[in-house]
Amino acid sequence: MIQATVFQVDDYGPWTVTPSPRPEMDLQTLQSRLYAEIAGFIGDREGYAFYTRGDNIVAITNRLDQDAHERLQASIGNRYPVTVSVGIDVGDTPRAALAGASAQLRAAGSAQDDTRTATCRGETADADAGEVTVGHFDIENATDRLTDRLDAFEVYTTVQQWYGTLARHLYQEHESLAFFVGGDNVVAICPPLDQETYHDVIDRVTSRTDVPFRVGVGTGKTTHRAGMAAKHGLEQGRETDRAVVMVDGCPTPSV
Amino acid sequence: MIQATVFQVDDYGPWTVTPSPRPEMDLQTLQSRLYAEIAGFIGDREGYAFYTRGDNIVAITNRLDQDAHERLQASIGNRYPVTVSVGIDVGDTPRAALAGASAQLRAAGSAQDDTRTATCRGETADADAGEVTVGHFDIENATDRLTDRLDAFEVYTTVQQWYGTLARHLYQEHESLAFFVGGDNVVAICPPLDQETYHDVIDRVTSRTDVPFRVGVGTGKTTHRAGMAAKHGLEQGRETDRAVVMVDGCPTPSV
Amino acid sequence: MIQATVFQVDDYGPWTVTPSPRPEMDLQTLQSRLYAEIAGFIGDREGYAFYTRGDNIVAITNRLDQDAHERLQASIGNRYPVTVSVGIDVGDTPRAALAGASAQLRAAGSAQDDTRTATCRGETADADAGEVTVGHFDIENATDRLTDRLDAFEVYTTVQQWYGTLARHLYQEHESLAFFVGGDNVVAICPPLDQETYHDVIDRVTSRTDVPFRVGVGTGKTTHRAGMAAKHGLEQGRETDRAVVMVDGCPTPSV
Amino acid sequence: MIQATVFQVDDYGPWTVTPSPRPEMDLQTLQSRLYAEIAGFIGDREGYAFYTRGDNIVAITNRLDQDAHERLQASIGNRYPVTVSVGIDVGDTPRAALAGASAQLRAAGSAQDDTRTATCRGETADADAGEVTVGHFDIENATDRLTDRLDAFEVYTTVQQWYGTLARHLYQEHESLAFFVGGDNVVAICPPLDQETYHDVIDRVTSRTDVPFRVGVGTGKTTHRAGMAAKHGLEQGRETDRAVVMVDGCPTPSV
Repeated sequence: MIQATVFQVDDYGPWTVTPSPRPEMDLQTLQSRLYAEIAGFIGDREGYAFYTRGDNIVAITNRLDQDAHERLQASIGNRYPVTVSVGIDVGDTPRAALAGASAQLRAAGSAQDDTRTATCRGETADADAGEVTVGHFDIENATDRLTDRLDAFEVYTTVQQWYGTLARHLYQEHESLAFFVGGDNVVAICPPLDQETYHDVIDRVTSRTDVPFRVGVGTGKTTHRAGMAAKHGLEQGRETDRAVVMVDGCPTPSV
Repeated sequence: MIQATVFQVDDYGPWTVTPSPRPEMDLQTLQSRLYAEIAGFIGDREGYAFYTRGDNIVAITNRLDQDAHERLQASIGNRYPVTVSVGIDVGDTPRAALAGASAQLRAAGSAQDDTRTATCRGETADADAGEVTVGHFDIENATDRLTDRLDAFEVYTTVQQWYGTLARHLYQEHESLAFFVGGDNVVAICPPLDQETYHDVIDRVTSRTDVPFRVGVGTGKTTHRAGMAAKHGLEQGRETDRAVVMVDGCPTPSV
Repeated sequence: MIQATVFQVDDYGPWTVTPSPRPEMDLQTLQSRLYAEIAGFIGDREGYAFYTRGDNIVAITNRLDQDAHERLQASIGNRYPVTVSVGIDVGDTPRAALAGASAQLRAAGSAQDDTRTATCRGETADADAGEVTVGHFDIENATDRLTDRLDAFEVYTTVQQWYGTLARHLYQEHESLAFFVGGDNVVAICPPLDQETYHDVIDRVTSRTDVPFRVGVGTGKTTHRAGMAAKHGLEQGRETDRAVVMVDGCPTPSV
Repeated sequence: MIQATVFQVDDYGPWTVTPSPRPEMDLQTLQSRLYAEIAGFIGDREGYAFYTRGDNIVAITNRLDQDAHERLQASIGNRYPVTVSVGIDVGDTPRAALAGASAQLRAAGSAQDDTRTATCRGETADADAGEVTVGHFDIENATDRLTDRLDAFEVYTTVQQWYGTLARHLYQEHESLAFFVGGDNVVAICPPLDQETYHDVIDRVTSRTDVPFRVGVGTGKTTHRAGMAAKHGLEQGRETDRAVVMVDGCPTPSV
């Protein structure tokens, strides 16, 4: 069982241009700090949050109950000029959980409904409900192949195109949610998939993008534990030159 | 004349896994705050900085001399566990400026050269050298069309695919650098282009992505002034239902 | 039972002048953010943290076990250029708990021992061990009396002198720890004291400082709950013109 | 000539308890970040800002014109849930400048006037007007004498009492503004005073507090340059065991 949350800044578009357009760098630093706030809070409870569109932040929130979500909302309301509404849901796959969370949010009102303020809707799972699987992907020798060779924008668009292809494939074929987390790293929240499937994902995406890459796969009681195991898997893959390494999650919360 | 800067975290990949992998949410909050730091500093001098890959941040830095860059580097070194190296260059087009800045950085050493620490290389322009043009794009009725209708991940990948197509087209055909800045917004730094060219860009990208969108175009002595003008243009476009509105930059620094 | 924690930046004095003195505003922003980090983490677990000397931060940490402290240390190590060592202890009074925590820290090494890095020593209490009492003090009509009448520095030193007198009296006579939290507000962590005692504290401190003030006193299972009750008490005192109002803590975590 | 600024959060007291009291740790992190924001902006222009009461922040702002102040105000308004009003003035001494800045602010309305929002009033000096003198004080062997020997609260109150005595003496006798900046450090903005005067200040304050301390004194075109010179003076004092070392400011902005 996966629990997903969508955080959506209330009526943000209109706010950014009222009474007149606000400077872009003010908006960028506001969005970055708001994300850091949410990522810190969720990470502290062994979940993961992803920037995505900045005004819509997606999180994997197994073990966070509705109280915790509301506490985060209240704390944001006390420290930022904007409020966030929250949709939460549980699903058999990451895709299903997020679809549910998005539906909960929409049921609370439009993103530009100026009467919707800091609502929180949805279902949360029992703290013990199941495990999370994380696939941590990165590009083989990205520094040599890309960063030290092409200009910064070409590297960026190459990585984005690879990420986009990977994310859409994982979403459509494997009910997974993949997020770019900087550098040449992609973190995907997946249902249980076997080793062969990961090899197949790599083959298909590499053939379309001409970018060779690896994955470490971890499983654990929380996203954090699964993610740490995945990172260790990726390290092992680099050292032993394997494209897919699967690792069980750390039994204790290794920080 | 455009002046571009690449900020690159020194030896970041190895740092993230030494002595063992660091928790992803710690890395995400670190990257977000580092970006906010750079965006605040650059924005304060009427430039723009873009997150891009997080460990490689691209900025348009007309009017920032080498001293200012070094002051920012020193300040980061005093407050973060990592250092950043800097490449700066000036070019006739945004693409050329960034290519030069990237070359300056590479000449200083590899992104994973553990002896390269907080270097700063490159050429800066006179403060009065020329004007900047900003195109601010957004999707028509994105809230109705996307946010309030699809799930958060589908919206995100739709926006990313539209952005990717737009960015590559502007880069390859028009020497421009386009960046996703959250929501359904894309900010592009462009050479002088006429109104017809913008209409053509919209037509080509819409035909490939099926996403209708608008642009406000502003010109000014600094990126901030050009960007504010572009935002006003975009607002006018929404109100009058025009796909392209071009506006001269504000003569005074409108904050 | 009170549990107190001292966070001490390791070898900070030497760091601030190595290789040469670092700019004061860089140090100030570093210290502010480090404090905000710790206050956010502790506050999130219903404890309180106080800036005190910036490089030595005092916290009331009932319900935070050693794991939680170590997680915070690790997270700081991942995001700041400095590390912090931690001493924790439990006592019958706030003063005794802090004395123990300070002793634990000193036993781990000097504040300027360059081999002491991110140590964590001490005893933590059971999560259910007892209650916390918070006294929230502020000056009667401080805005009229001070802020709107004197210059900013005179107000500041008046408030500091009042705070200093109050804090020393509470520490020496009532085993309490009082902290200035901004404006004209002082938050004290106290053992159980009766209403008469608070009236006596106010009389003695007012007679020495000529500053009339009030207090709301709250009790609760956590510092946060006791503190919220104390704030409500202070509000009631303002409305009903009473100098001391004692309130029981909220049964549920009111955020 | 000294230019001082008071930043005052508008109607902050009422905001902190509306609609009901806000959690203390949310207020503390808000105040810390707001201060860090202001300190970063001012520091970036070679001025100094001091936390003082958190809702009233005092800054030395030589070289910042009214435009710069308004830009900072606008940026805060775009990113925080509160606004700040600003009073600025110029004086022959730091005390006179701050008195003027405070008067400007009061003339704009009460700190709890809910119709006063982000006002900015006052006079600014020419960028070239005169020099700033900074005295940087610290306690002799504070680590051995205090931090490694007493409990964290006793050290804190000892330092606060020393600071208070020093600050009031400098203010009343020498028209100076002294601020505690963490650890055992005090930064004072002074008019030109001779070496004998500093020795006399140390003697008088030590005799009242039993705390021996040193000072480095620097002079420069900006507060930052004077402050860096003062820090170098303090280092020299430690190395050569002198209580007062006076140094000329660095001619170039040493970051």
